[in-house]
Amino acid sequence: MNAEGYAMEIEARDGAARAGRLITPHGAINTPTFMPVATYGAVRGIPAHELAGIGAQILLANTYHLHERPGDELIGDLGGLHGFTGWRGPWLTDSGGYQVTSLAHRMTLDEEGVTFASPLDGKRRQLTPENVIGIQERLGSDIAMILDQCLPPDPDAGLALEQAMERTLRWAERAASARKRPDQAVFAIVQGGVNEGLRTRSARASAALGFDGYAHGGLGLGESREARQDAVSAAHEGLPSPAPRYLMGLGRPVDLLDGVACGVDLFDCVVPTRNGRHGLLFTHQGVLHIKNARYKTDDSPVDPACDCITCRSHSRAYLNHLIRCGEALGSQLAALHNLRFYLGLLERARRAIVEGGFAALRTEVEAASSERAA
Amino acid sequence: MNAEGYAMEIEARDGAARAGRLITPHGAINTPTFMPVATYGAVRGIPAHELAGIGAQILLANTYHLHERPGDELIGDLGGLHGFTGWRGPWLTDSGGYQVTSLAHRMTLDEEGVTFASPLDGKRRQLTPENVIGIQERLGSDIAMILDQCLPPDPDAGLALEQAMERTLRWAERAASARKRPDQAVFAIVQGGVNEGLRTRSARASAALGFDGYAHGGLGLGESREARQDAVSAAHEGLPSPAPRYLMGLGRPVDLLDGVACGVDLFDCVVPTRNGRHGLLFTHQGVLHIKNARYKTDDSPVDPACDCITCRSHSRAYLNHLIRCGEALGSQLAALHNLRFYLGLLERARRAIVEGGFAALRTEVEAASSERAA
Repeated sequence: MNAEGYAMEIEARDGAARAGRLITPHGAINTPTFMPVATYGAVRGIPAHELAGIGAQILLANTYHLHERPGDELIGDLGGLHGFTGWRGPWLTDSGGYQVTSLAHRMTLDEEGVTFASPLDGKRRQLTPENVIGIQERLGSDIAMILDQCLPPDPDAGLALEQAMERTLRWAERAASARKRPDQAVFAIVQGGVNEGLRTRSARASAALGFDGYAHGGLGLGESREARQDAVSAAHEGLPSPAPRYLMGLGRPVDLLDGVACGVDLFDCVVPTRNGRHGLLFTHQGVLHIKNARYKTDDSPVDPACDCITCRSHSRAYLNHLIRCGEALGSQLAALHNLRFYLGLLERARRAIVEGGFAALRTEVEAASSERAA
Repeated sequence: MNAEGYAMEIEARDGAARAGRLITPHGAINTPTFMPVATYGAVRGIPAHELAGIGAQILLANTYHLHERPGDELIGDLGGLHGFTGWRGPWLTDSGGYQVTSLAHRMTLDEEGVTFASPLDGKRRQLTPENVIGIQERLGSDIAMILDQCLPPDPDAGLALEQAMERTLRWAERAASARKRPDQAVFAIVQGGVNEGLRTRSARASAALGFDGYAHGGLGLGESREARQDAVSAAHEGLPSPAPRYLMGLGRPVDLLDGVACGVDLFDCVVPTRNGRHGLLFTHQGVLHIKNARYKTDDSPVDPACDCITCRSHSRAYLNHLIRCGEALGSQLAALHNLRFYLGLLERARRAIVEGGFAALRTEVEAASSERAA
């Protein structure tokens, strides 16, 4: 890593899986780890001190949303994300491209960048490889992402995938030239769908540009687990081993462990918080649908093996009641538990890698994932 | 107080104001104090350990709402409110009568009780003086309230007010006869609008029935502050001095101190949480409308004199942003701060009473209440 104040140390390996330590100016991060999603600079309903209490080490904020509200200039003036929000630890910001292509209307994408009408005021906005770096420098995140062109991994879209991958590389070069802050790490994004050849080429060419870390983009969009693992492994062949690797937007517990098995260090996903709000709770015994009538009188904790506040202080019956009533505390307690489950899962993965028992952990989580909790 | 495990000690007086200690089976409560409203057994969006952290000593739950969902039988089977929710300290439950008369449709009230169609399933329900005691005994609250007939204090409604007050007394007698749990305190409710003669009569007759404490009902419904204070003071003439006194459903900071000045010990109100959700924040300098554009770039805390998490960890600019975005954490942080302000206000009142400086505190709060915070 070239950015000032950053380093990545690999502490142990178990197969391709690795346990590491990513140093940033706002703290060190034990990897592999999960990054809770704080869209507007806040994880929905969960204050910063609670996140620290369940083992969160780094949060992810959405560049596009913060650019719209309250604005990156304002956040920059108030000390960046670390000064503006209650979270003083490391921040990663996405590039905004994914939000724009999924949320915005009247969107056009060309070599210059992405042009669209803001869903807020209908006015024309443009994101370019250069200005998304500028926005993220004002937000002051520890890790910024380049703008990429992301296509779903459709095996029939060979040429389009290759063109999107090549454009992402040209955008990566422009992003690298636009950087002004030496104290912010920037990650490139590998593209190429599930075409292993494209993934390796994309990774090699990105690595040649000399970024601080590398992400896998355009995955978790319908491809099989096997195809995804092959794509990730193919990319890793083209990446420098010590650089941090981030699998964007995935997924279920088994998807995370698939990534870890391939040597991924960082993950993010809205699944734990969103599923929590809908009453789907991850446990060591499988997924639990807390709104189910069978939990109405169940005074046991959501997950007896969990150490979070939800499980230590509350019963399944109480959560069932709160979520059925639409009481906000129910969603919060459920989201907090699910985040703790995800963070704890990667803590377990890290320990297993250090102890050489990662394969056994994977088998155990695989078995639980096909169960419904008792 | 006659119930087992209860006692009320008056520790200091300053004029009619008093600082006391109310002992219950689930903990002692320093009075005067404010009881956060936990409608469905949870203060909206605020977990129990956060409530304890801001000085909450006793919570109020709504009997009618819990009777409908998840049901008092279920809560009773799971250890009552203390076992079912995350709050192990004292609970007070209202009688449900106020909710029914304000929420239910096809409501009829006669000597037997209140009959109505449930807003949930349209089916006929009846609350009687006897069954609201039974429901609250199953909920297992430390303090239960009798069913009362509450009319707004319309000075032209002389005869109706007297009839409602007399009916409330007959219901109080039936409630007293229905009690089965020796370990639950029951409070009577004084009625009579702002007619001082009726208030004193209602208080004397309630006291003659020998309840554990007494509440002022039917106030905070449009009457002047002066008329309310006269009504409360008139009732206190008819009540035994050592028994706890509770002013139901009020109100703004100045209303609470008016009550304390008359010798009230317990308060509850939805104002701090509801106003918080709407971005109205109470501070030592007056009320602050956090959504106002002037706070968009204000990096000072909501209330520099406040010790809550919201004020210690976050800026006005961050709260302005979260509440404008509709981000749940914004409402929670605002409600938490307002509850801390209310709890802190009554802590300050208690200290002032002990030190003989209550009048000075009242003048100070009165002055701030007419200000808008800077």
